Amino acid sequence: MSANPPFEEESTVNKPPSFSGIRTFMGLDHRRQFEDADYAVIGIPFDTASTFRVGARFAPAAIREMSQLLRPYHPEHQVHVITALSGMDYGDIPVNPGNIEKTMASVEAVIRNAARAQVVPICLGGDHSVSLPVLRGLASVYGPMGLIHFDAHTDTWSSSWGEPYTHATPFRRAVEEGLIATDHAIQIGLRGPVSNPEDRQIPKTLGFTTLSTQEVLARSLDDTIAQIQAVVGSHPFYISLDIDVLDPAFAPGTGTPEAGGLSTAQLLQILRHCSVDALKGMDLVEVLPAYDLSQITAVAACHLLYEMIAQLAVAHGQ
Amino acid sequence: MSANPPFEEESTVNKPPSFSGIRTFMGLDHRRQFEDADYAVIGIPFDTASTFRVGARFAPAAIREMSQLLRPYHPEHQVHVITALSGMDYGDIPVNPGNIEKTMASVEAVIRNAARAQVVPICLGGDHSVSLPVLRGLASVYGPMGLIHFDAHTDTWSSSWGEPYTHATPFRRAVEEGLIATDHAIQIGLRGPVSNPEDRQIPKTLGFTTLSTQEVLARSLDDTIAQIQAVVGSHPFYISLDIDVLDPAFAPGTGTPEAGGLSTAQLLQILRHCSVDALKGMDLVEVLPAYDLSQITAVAACHLLYEMIAQLAVAHGQ
Amino acid sequence: MSANPPFEEESTVNKPPSFSGIRTFMGLDHRRQFEDADYAVIGIPFDTASTFRVGARFAPAAIREMSQLLRPYHPEHQVHVITALSGMDYGDIPVNPGNIEKTMASVEAVIRNAARAQVVPICLGGDHSVSLPVLRGLASVYGPMGLIHFDAHTDTWSSSWGEPYTHATPFRRAVEEGLIATDHAIQIGLRGPVSNPEDRQIPKTLGFTTLSTQEVLARSLDDTIAQIQAVVGSHPFYISLDIDVLDPAFAPGTGTPEAGGLSTAQLLQILRHCSVDALKGMDLVEVLPAYDLSQITAVAACHLLYEMIAQLAVAHGQ
Amino acid sequence: MSANPPFEEESTVNKPPSFSGIRTFMGLDHRRQFEDADYAVIGIPFDTASTFRVGARFAPAAIREMSQLLRPYHPEHQVHVITALSGMDYGDIPVNPGNIEKTMASVEAVIRNAARAQVVPICLGGDHSVSLPVLRGLASVYGPMGLIHFDAHTDTWSSSWGEPYTHATPFRRAVEEGLIATDHAIQIGLRGPVSNPEDRQIPKTLGFTTLSTQEVLARSLDDTIAQIQAVVGSHPFYISLDIDVLDPAFAPGTGTPEAGGLSTAQLLQILRHCSVDALKGMDLVEVLPAYDLSQITAVAACHLLYEMIAQLAVAHGQ
Amino acid sequence: MSANPPFEEESTVNKPPSFSGIRTFMGLDHRRQFEDADYAVIGIPFDTASTFRVGARFAPAAIREMSQLLRPYHPEHQVHVITALSGMDYGDIPVNPGNIEKTMASVEAVIRNAARAQVVPICLGGDHSVSLPVLRGLASVYGPMGLIHFDAHTDTWSSSWGEPYTHATPFRRAVEEGLIATDHAIQIGLRGPVSNPEDRQIPKTLGFTTLSTQEVLARSLDDTIAQIQAVVGSHPFYISLDIDVLDPAFAPGTGTPEAGGLSTAQLLQILRHCSVDALKGMDLVEVLPAYDLSQITAVAACHLLYEMIAQLAVAHGQ
Amino acid sequence: MSANPPFEEESTVNKPPSFSGIRTFMGLDHRRQFEDADYAVIGIPFDTASTFRVGARFAPAAIREMSQLLRPYHPEHQVHVITALSGMDYGDIPVNPGNIEKTMASVEAVIRNAARAQVVPICLGGDHSVSLPVLRGLASVYGPMGLIHFDAHTDTWSSSWGEPYTHATPFRRAVEEGLIATDHAIQIGLRGPVSNPEDRQIPKTLGFTTLSTQEVLARSLDDTIAQIQAVVGSHPFYISLDIDVLDPAFAPGTGTPEAGGLSTAQLLQILRHCSVDALKGMDLVEVLPAYDLSQITAVAACHLLYEMIAQLAVAHGQ
Repeated sequence: MSANPPFEEESTVNKPPSFSGIRTFMGLDHRRQFEDADYAVIGIPFDTASTFRVGARFAPAAIREMSQLLRPYHPEHQVHVITALSGMDYGDIPVNPGNIEKTMASVEAVIRNAARAQVVPICLGGDHSVSLPVLRGLASVYGPMGLIHFDAHTDTWSSSWGEPYTHATPFRRAVEEGLIATDHAIQIGLRGPVSNPEDRQIPKTLGFTTLSTQEVLARSLDDTIAQIQAVVGSHPFYISLDIDVLDPAFAPGTGTPEAGGLSTAQLLQILRHCSVDALKGMDLVEVLPAYDLSQITAVAACHLLYEMIAQLAVAHGQ
Repeated sequence: MSANPPFEEESTVNKPPSFSGIRTFMGLDHRRQFEDADYAVIGIPFDTASTFRVGARFAPAAIREMSQLLRPYHPEHQVHVITALSGMDYGDIPVNPGNIEKTMASVEAVIRNAARAQVVPICLGGDHSVSLPVLRGLASVYGPMGLIHFDAHTDTWSSSWGEPYTHATPFRRAVEEGLIATDHAIQIGLRGPVSNPEDRQIPKTLGFTTLSTQEVLARSLDDTIAQIQAVVGSHPFYISLDIDVLDPAFAPGTGTPEAGGLSTAQLLQILRHCSVDALKGMDLVEVLPAYDLSQITAVAACHLLYEMIAQLAVAHGQ
Repeated sequence: MSANPPFEEESTVNKPPSFSGIRTFMGLDHRRQFEDADYAVIGIPFDTASTFRVGARFAPAAIREMSQLLRPYHPEHQVHVITALSGMDYGDIPVNPGNIEKTMASVEAVIRNAARAQVVPICLGGDHSVSLPVLRGLASVYGPMGLIHFDAHTDTWSSSWGEPYTHATPFRRAVEEGLIATDHAIQIGLRGPVSNPEDRQIPKTLGFTTLSTQEVLARSLDDTIAQIQAVVGSHPFYISLDIDVLDPAFAPGTGTPEAGGLSTAQLLQILRHCSVDALKGMDLVEVLPAYDLSQITAVAACHLLYEMIAQLAVAHGQ
Repeated sequence: MSANPPFEEESTVNKPPSFSGIRTFMGLDHRRQFEDADYAVIGIPFDTASTFRVGARFAPAAIREMSQLLRPYHPEHQVHVITALSGMDYGDIPVNPGNIEKTMASVEAVIRNAARAQVVPICLGGDHSVSLPVLRGLASVYGPMGLIHFDAHTDTWSSSWGEPYTHATPFRRAVEEGLIATDHAIQIGLRGPVSNPEDRQIPKTLGFTTLSTQEVLARSLDDTIAQIQAVVGSHPFYISLDIDVLDPAFAPGTGTPEAGGLSTAQLLQILRHCSVDALKGMDLVEVLPAYDLSQITAVAACHLLYEMIAQLAVAHGQ
Repeated sequence: MSANPPFEEESTVNKPPSFSGIRTFMGLDHRRQFEDADYAVIGIPFDTASTFRVGARFAPAAIREMSQLLRPYHPEHQVHVITALSGMDYGDIPVNPGNIEKTMASVEAVIRNAARAQVVPICLGGDHSVSLPVLRGLASVYGPMGLIHFDAHTDTWSSSWGEPYTHATPFRRAVEEGLIATDHAIQIGLRGPVSNPEDRQIPKTLGFTTLSTQEVLARSLDDTIAQIQAVVGSHPFYISLDIDVLDPAFAPGTGTPEAGGLSTAQLLQILRHCSVDALKGMDLVEVLPAYDLSQITAVAACHLLYEMIAQLAVAHGQ
Repeated sequence: MSANPPFEEESTVNKPPSFSGIRTFMGLDHRRQFEDADYAVIGIPFDTASTFRVGARFAPAAIREMSQLLRPYHPEHQVHVITALSGMDYGDIPVNPGNIEKTMASVEAVIRNAARAQVVPICLGGDHSVSLPVLRGLASVYGPMGLIHFDAHTDTWSSSWGEPYTHATPFRRAVEEGLIATDHAIQIGLRGPVSNPEDRQIPKTLGFTTLSTQEVLARSLDDTIAQIQAVVGSHPFYISLDIDVLDPAFAPGTGTPEAGGLSTAQLLQILRHCSVDALKGMDLVEVLPAYDLSQITAVAACHLLYEMIAQLAVAHGQ
């Protein structure tokens, strides 16, 4: 029995408690200039494009609030996330509620600036429509992107109620605009009822690989990880993470919940083993705080984001 | 990269959003006559027979509300649920709160009419006491029924506080009344503390096969599916699904929650592989909306019901 | 088909419903003297030592409230928990909110009395700081204790904001005070970001065996159970169960939630196969009722506690 | 400026915090014998007779839980409630969920015993049906009772769905059974839509005085108080307080909410000036904890009950 | 004491409970044709135009759900609301989430049809932007409308983020389009911080009379009622009722809450004394169910709507 | 009818929506230096000193979150709050959870710095213990302070459980330390049960004037306002506002709720007419976000704070 261990951990005496202070993501500096940052957390509080429950406009604030729980060292990756990389919290991109075109222009401009500065944008939606302008901004710098897309839904509809830009269409538009390297695109977690037989065929016709939740659960997670790696390869890529890929028990605060999804532990394990060497940006979308009593969803979102940032630190950190 | 896929999905331009309109289950027509229907969703808002938390009387409304999320095509079964079968929403059977005998008479009469019209009743409880009059109505047409009963509890008590008809006794009464073909009856998901040593023995003595949650989790889901099929065989059968077979994380809105249950994904997988060729009716009971903040339970209930309807569409649809 | 089973279960006619009556744990007698009891449920409503969300002071009441759901017979262990052992509900130990030293003195004294009377204390926290005085009380009678510690966090910090006694430090203090037989101590379920590289090393340096959630999920539960048994052996031991070892979906009402944890079913299975022959006491801590809407967490806590009491009944009951 | 006031308040050093301990109402002793008590708090967790939302079975526990907030001295009445009178918490009367006749028999018997012992029963419903057996018990000792009935509804229907005993009929039955001295009976707070023109006429025909919420709000509270006193006079009387007399903002946790009710401050002021010299019993009914998020309703219930007990202390205390 | 009153109220034995059945407003028939109706409840589940919290798209369903509580006879007005007038529930007008112009066209067309059929539309928003197309439809039949507008906000901005059609601009647009008889227009309940000095001046410049909450509370409600009558006179008029005119305690489920508002009792009293002889239509807007835990807001909304329908029955009923 | 009003309100086209961006109070600049500011919003997330419900540590964040709703112009005072005064958001003062002495030292130092810079601190608690160090800091610059203290409780106990510094003792300590000009001190809103007869006498003995809620409601608000002004006069003073002065309907999210309190409208009216010429600082304490579902309490807190800042702008602004 060792009563006096020979080491001394970092003192926390003079640090204010994690529950205090102005809420930036994980306490990162809030600034608007991208220079010298490795990654930037960027809020996009836009939810006009939702087709069922709505309210993702409050997600960036709710995720920042809960991110106070995150601590700086990732023990599985053995990396000190805060010191290994330079991160910043950009705050939110100005959006125009009710006007998706103006909003998309604002988003694209900010993301392009981030990409030009070689900053990896970590975007907090908002509904899933925000992925399109983010991809526009990134592709304008990096060319067509590989894609790892976690979602219960394909989000490749042609339109919703005649509108071309909604949270059900971003990846259709993105392919049409040449933003996606479809050979390097994979969707994981599709499940639940759809509108018509074409729904699940569309991504395949677009050139995507797809893995339904049923397919993921019927095999080992290692197989899923291997397939993701095989598709994406070393192509510059983007991760789009719709929180509804999780079962509603793990993510009750979302807009179009589908029962029977992955657990957070399963998703974290998949993410933990995806190589991020070529990751150029990501988003986490469709968190709805008004439905997130006890913040179950915000906690999951924070840990999923943290996992990716930690891997960036492993891949690119000092 | 294919920017212009050669197909065009069904237009949704002129359809009202799923969140609008009078709430029938999945938007089915509301009518009281059973002719020409293949299945009928029928609410039974009765909860007088509950022994702990109470409030399932609001479950039919809550499930109809959330069912707006359901879309018509099931991609795993590759069936268009709405067009393949003719469904209807009967509305609710008149119940007498506080008087279970009168209520049971009403329920039995409606279900018998449905069965005579060869309509499969999909019943929304209500507490579990409603299964008894539903079985009476079905057995009066089809004879003793096979049974797939998902539940944390056996619901085969002799009485509760001296009362013969409660949500803890329906299957005991059903056997006593000769409504169950006990050789073709199986209970899945039993778990949690019980009142006495006989509790878990009763169903076996009645002739049921039982699979506790512990037993289900100790084997593959395929084994469970196989055993269900082996017991039920091709006998006309009934499915009774108490939502508390799920873990409280997946079904917080229920009356007698027991920790350590199945996940919705596991239950969906089991249901997805049960043959419904001989299914004559089903119920989903014990959803309590007042405890279902964020509607986690209602979402699960809708997808479980949808799964069964989709299989009916495969089995019987055009 | 057997309509008239040849047995008759215990009558429940004259028992009041489980939802009635003064709330003691599981309806046990409330008394302050330990003689003649095998185990005593003891509340410790202290939460001054929390570092993030707070409010575990209401946990003993919330757990007692939900414990009305528990029934007396455990079907897997085939034991009548109430009659096999003599249990009591001590009520709560007087605590001094805001003054941890005075509180610890109160707790230690009560637990020592319990231990001297050969009573197994089942302690309801409170935050995790309460484990230290409980261990002081037990070790004063039994000597250094083996330890099975379920938690997302190591709780072996040297201090928090300069304070030596918080919910992040109890097991560090316990080792320093010689209360733990570190060769027989194991931590299960560690996960999530930590403050520095030492965090996860500290328990190992202290002599503990550790199993992170990632390690548990990467192997069979049987392997985890075997390793726990191998470490603890037949040494007198203590179980400390921080409810945050569960995923936030299964335990939303807790103070420092970490996504990606165990399910309640997994934890129950582990507990069910841990030998309790040498168990001298246990605690279940960090339940926060204000965040436990629909009581998902309280239900899980009750079943976890019940599992342990049932095993005590098997090990020591008549 | 006086820095050292010449008095010293009662030390609270050694008292456990109010949030600790087994929950009896206000910490009163729990016992089943009425001798030597001045008043007894008695739970009646019965809610089978509800016609809309349901769940008052958990009200006695929820009110006891929140009653920990109550402190012993009433400054407006200048009375030490705990020491001036001898109070006890009887616990709950055994009820038969689903069987109102058996339940009424149990309730009547307990209340008769209390009345014979000259104990004032303070009853915690349960739904409003419980008032009938309480009145039966009291009237068997005291003869027909005066009545101050606070409620949004008259509760004098002849039946509900053909059932004679529901939460909408107790005072009709009570008059029919000769339990009410109708000349000394007054209903206060009636409001909201009713079923038919007779609804509001029935109490008048029965001989009751009525004051609708509209009438109360159109005059001074002093006028209302005066009228109540004029009707009740010095006749032995009963107070029945349905929490839905309050506006849903002040009592969201109730079964048949009607907007536009009194505020808690208004009701407290009325109660504070009602003479209780001849009060022989009271109830507070229709609190539904499942709808009482943040416990707004339970807090109001506790203060309303406390107000009445304090006045008993003034009237009868030493 | 009269034990056997000489009358017999309407039997309710055979009516199903109010909590059962497909949810139309107050159980009214659901149909799409306006002929033969006196009034029609019409849902407009549109919320794209919200500037803060969002989610009024679910308000029509939530209000219909809670309207089951309403009973047919209004005792203060002594009118049987159901039999005196012919009412219907139109269901919801198809809306285009994200496209306000298309939505407004749909709404205007339906309302014009209602007005041509001399049906009074009772509109359930949706956000406050829906008032504009409703007024367009009515004014196309009746000419410029008088207006009683209850609201914390003037909703007469020129634009929001450059958008002309939002929930902050409907009455500005309405005046510009000549839909309002501004001499007969009054706003009641204005309060809270505004964007600039012009905000509160704009309605006055437009010709409206305004009464802030501060002004209403500083005088008797009778004075407010008199002023409303004086302004509106006998001109055909419209009532627009933004639920945020109530204090957040009485209407927590709304999008832009302002503390310090009216109570429901005060608003009901004002409404109860407004003559509706010339009422041509009304709306109740800005109920957000996701923020309406325990349905406090939905209950208030139902009673406010019922009050107006009851007065229509008095004014126009048989 | 005027369709084209001759004025043009301030364009809001290019401003981001109020729900976006890093959360400082009302969007004020976040900085740590006090120079050039007129007032500073300062969070003190300390809640160790609570005696019942706990969790005010999250109040500064919750109030900042909801303050996004506030707009810059106060129409009743006709002042542009943002431009008339220079405000800042200091963020939170570092606190030591569990150690009140260290925390008080930190708070006092920051407040003294603010006072020396002639900045009015607007403090966001935290529990009520934080008023003591704030008063220490202010009195060190301004001498003994006048006091307007809104609260249900006197908070002048000598100790709680033997501890001298809790949320029940700050004003006792403050008087003992000579921080209060007791002739200019008044408590408004006292109500509810207390521990002993001295409780309500203590403030009077200390020299304070007191107005119970019962006294406030028995007179006109104008009388209350006049009495407050008479007591405070032109002495430099402090406002301490415990949110529990409001009824739980208006402030459910608080720690020691007492039924029967003021409405937010009443409190706003009182505050609106208190002269703030000599106001040197204020606090708003005891908001508990975990109990503040739908943010009713946070909305009230924001408007109360805004009212005071607006008056500062009138008194001191350009």
